[in-house]
Amino acid sequence: MTLDAAPRTRSGGRAARRALRTATDFTMLPGVRNKLPTCEFLSGAEIERIDAASMDILENVGVVFRDDIALADWRAAGAKVQGERVYFDRGLIRDLMATIPATLTLHARDPEKSVKLGGRDAIFVPMTGAPYLRDLDDVRRNPTLDDLAMFHKLSHMLPALHSSAHHIVEPYDHPISQRHLRITYSSMKHSDKTFMGMTTSPRNAEDVIEMCRILFGSDFIDTHPVVTGNCNGNSPLVWDETMLGAMRAFARANQPVLCSPFVLGGANTPASVAASVAQLNAEALSALAYTQVIRRGAPAIYGHYLSTVSMKSGAPMAGTPEISLMNFMIGQMARFYGVPWRTSNTLGGAKTFDAQAGYESATTLSATLHAGAHYIWHSAGWNEAGMHCSVAKFIVDAEQCAMAHRMAQGVSFDDFDAALAAVRDVGPGGHYLGHPHTQENFQTAFFMPQMFDNNSIEQWQAEGSTEITARALVYARKLLSDYEEPKLDPAKDEELRAFIAKRETDIPASDELNQTF
Amino acid sequence: MTLDAAPRTRSGGRAARRALRTATDFTMLPGVRNKLPTCEFLSGAEIERIDAASMDILENVGVVFRDDIALADWRAAGAKVQGERVYFDRGLIRDLMATIPATLTLHARDPEKSVKLGGRDAIFVPMTGAPYLRDLDDVRRNPTLDDLAMFHKLSHMLPALHSSAHHIVEPYDHPISQRHLRITYSSMKHSDKTFMGMTTSPRNAEDVIEMCRILFGSDFIDTHPVVTGNCNGNSPLVWDETMLGAMRAFARANQPVLCSPFVLGGANTPASVAASVAQLNAEALSALAYTQVIRRGAPAIYGHYLSTVSMKSGAPMAGTPEISLMNFMIGQMARFYGVPWRTSNTLGGAKTFDAQAGYESATTLSATLHAGAHYIWHSAGWNEAGMHCSVAKFIVDAEQCAMAHRMAQGVSFDDFDAALAAVRDVGPGGHYLGHPHTQENFQTAFFMPQMFDNNSIEQWQAEGSTEITARALVYARKLLSDYEEPKLDPAKDEELRAFIAKRETDIPASDELNQTF
Repeated sequence: MTLDAAPRTRSGGRAARRALRTATDFTMLPGVRNKLPTCEFLSGAEIERIDAASMDILENVGVVFRDDIALADWRAAGAKVQGERVYFDRGLIRDLMATIPATLTLHARDPEKSVKLGGRDAIFVPMTGAPYLRDLDDVRRNPTLDDLAMFHKLSHMLPALHSSAHHIVEPYDHPISQRHLRITYSSMKHSDKTFMGMTTSPRNAEDVIEMCRILFGSDFIDTHPVVTGNCNGNSPLVWDETMLGAMRAFARANQPVLCSPFVLGGANTPASVAASVAQLNAEALSALAYTQVIRRGAPAIYGHYLSTVSMKSGAPMAGTPEISLMNFMIGQMARFYGVPWRTSNTLGGAKTFDAQAGYESATTLSATLHAGAHYIWHSAGWNEAGMHCSVAKFIVDAEQCAMAHRMAQGVSFDDFDAALAAVRDVGPGGHYLGHPHTQENFQTAFFMPQMFDNNSIEQWQAEGSTEITARALVYARKLLSDYEEPKLDPAKDEELRAFIAKRETDIPASDELNQTF
Repeated sequence: MTLDAAPRTRSGGRAARRALRTATDFTMLPGVRNKLPTCEFLSGAEIERIDAASMDILENVGVVFRDDIALADWRAAGAKVQGERVYFDRGLIRDLMATIPATLTLHARDPEKSVKLGGRDAIFVPMTGAPYLRDLDDVRRNPTLDDLAMFHKLSHMLPALHSSAHHIVEPYDHPISQRHLRITYSSMKHSDKTFMGMTTSPRNAEDVIEMCRILFGSDFIDTHPVVTGNCNGNSPLVWDETMLGAMRAFARANQPVLCSPFVLGGANTPASVAASVAQLNAEALSALAYTQVIRRGAPAIYGHYLSTVSMKSGAPMAGTPEISLMNFMIGQMARFYGVPWRTSNTLGGAKTFDAQAGYESATTLSATLHAGAHYIWHSAGWNEAGMHCSVAKFIVDAEQCAMAHRMAQGVSFDDFDAALAAVRDVGPGGHYLGHPHTQENFQTAFFMPQMFDNNSIEQWQAEGSTEITARALVYARKLLSDYEEPKLDPAKDEELRAFIAKRETDIPASDELNQTF
């Protein structure tokens, strides 16, 4: 990788170590190295039972691929195709799954910000797809390209976010038919972290890949993952043409696809946790296997979007116990197949950034960490079932991710003996605040969240009685005023702009809106 | 147990099963039977290293017991006593620890509400000790006996709370010297769940035990735990006279003591997670061992209160990664010694019931569950570092506990085959809402939180745009209007009142305030 224009001043190993110690530094934290034991909830026999049920679904119920090319591909690969429905022999599925790499590195344009996925390695990726934002004044409105740029800048600066994603919010001020170009450029321009690629059509996906070729070089991207493409399944057991075409664009270019059944538990799965997982697993396997039909050995990621549905209103729910349990179970299934695994973080249905949002988000974050997820998407900003991205919540969620990052590191015994010497020095009834060991270690020993106010009520009142939303918005403004654009090689920048200009000439400007999740 | 006046109508096995299925029922949920794997974070060697460090502290640094009786007891038990400091041979500690029962049953006056502790069995106990409340109008003020009664009524009605605790809030309208009598009576009168006993002085603890003898019968309580007494340690490595005297009152009466070092990590422990745990563990062991000096075989519970301290302000912090890690570690230590373990839940420092409170509480709740805690105290209402108990948060926390209760049950495969048959029926592209399996199972398959609003923003606006605080307060008022006092045997009631009247004649009324945690 030869992007020598990428700035090094704010990154590097030493800065990364400093970022590990203080939350005020803007340096990206290294990827999460999760030392927590995963919550191995299912027995081996139960894992095999779910696997067998999924294989039975794949063999005997089949999966609909609403796409002629995919159907032809499957026929050629040896599956039984009847109409749009594909029936897979479990041996074929296992054979195809076997070539998916267990781990991968997502390369960023600043190589110091490249991150690993799989095994014990995980990353936090902000939310995407919100048709509204709650802005710097906490006003709910439709977003613009400037709002999107703001979120890309915040993603760039918040240390625990490892990606600038793509359409964090939908930029309503640009024609939908050309929006993918501006979104991709914004991700590339305002951050030098890794990012995501639009999959809103096969052609749009091709444009993203072309822009990645410009940014990273054609040869480089053919052998190195630089962008992820999410393809949602249409549960139960359907993959649509748009998603399959986008999947082909990414997999052919050797870029990792998130194969994500879109589950509303109880509505498009049975009212049963274990059977929902079996169906979701069959859906994910069918798409993961298809990536290997497209390009053997291409990276691919087991994914899902997962809500349970209120049987009173049909509304998606989050932060519920079954979602945590399903996360534990799906994590086990992904490890059973030996593939990296994407889940969703900080989901929730609150309309404002109230305590509901806090409970939902923290519950989900904890579950993703104990479940051993790798690609932890929607890790900042999500609220109102994804209908809006909240600036305030974006800031707080990112600090929650920083705390989870710390927790995942576990506990060091390196200074255990020195600290025990302090116990002997201080003795019964003493205190540690003045002890040299405390003075040397207090900055690193215990995480001090900036967004939590732990002062006395008197001090809190003296400082204006601000709740967390207001505090986070102050901090967001401060971050944005400190923002420094990571320098993009001017030649590449020009080439990207020329590509966009050409494509925007080719593509007629539409004026319809689009709301995706 | 022969409290035949205890009402049975709202309890019983069938009602308990119904309560498992629906959150609107007031029937107490059974104790938590935690099927989640515990987060075994420390290696066996690390557990032994902490144990060895704690034993070294006990043998060579010693623990101060500021109490002549305890010092005499320890001398008689074979420990080395120098001044107020006691040095313990590790063999003595292990010998005393060996007789603490690994599990126990806390007997409630309604025997259907008796609960198990230890092993896989856990209970949720509401917060206690708040000098302020946020009331039914979310106004922060000093509490009264009526406010305390309100919280005891809510504890009685909220299904996932297994105890009415004791002074959830400090009743400021009654003289402090007599308050323990009124608090204990309120716990006993307004709920037939188990409760806690005041430990504000040795004599007060004796009064509690005497009232328990009246309620349960002297013979019964000598052989059955009916009340817990919390004794806080004065970290580092000090136990005070008040707590030790109260400990003796409880242990002599064969009632379980929570032996709880009071840790402000970094202030009264070293700035090191592992060494903080080693110190806390030594403190807990010294008190647990002392319960066995008092009465061999008496039940006792490994406890702690645990914050980390902001090195900027000295304020206690909650919801931080080190607190979760310490919970995992302390859980492992308690299992290593084979004793039941108390921790604290839903701690936090927010001044209002905002998103901070939600994050802090959910993070802590998740950690206590994965840590395998047994006596999960402060499970409802805690806010502002324990300075106030919030009615709104009490309601929401209790629902969070209900969700944790559900999660702890894990996943049933009982209807797996039937649900998979639904997958075959529905097939690709169908939906499950009308399927008979869904109709039969939707009420139990996925938890539907009442306090979370998951409706569309349009519907939410049409319903008044209420945040969770307002919704919870509406629900609290509804609960209180539905409250039915669990009938207390009139003869016992009269005897309790006569005892209180006599003691309030004996004890001069003081008018000072008291703020305890």
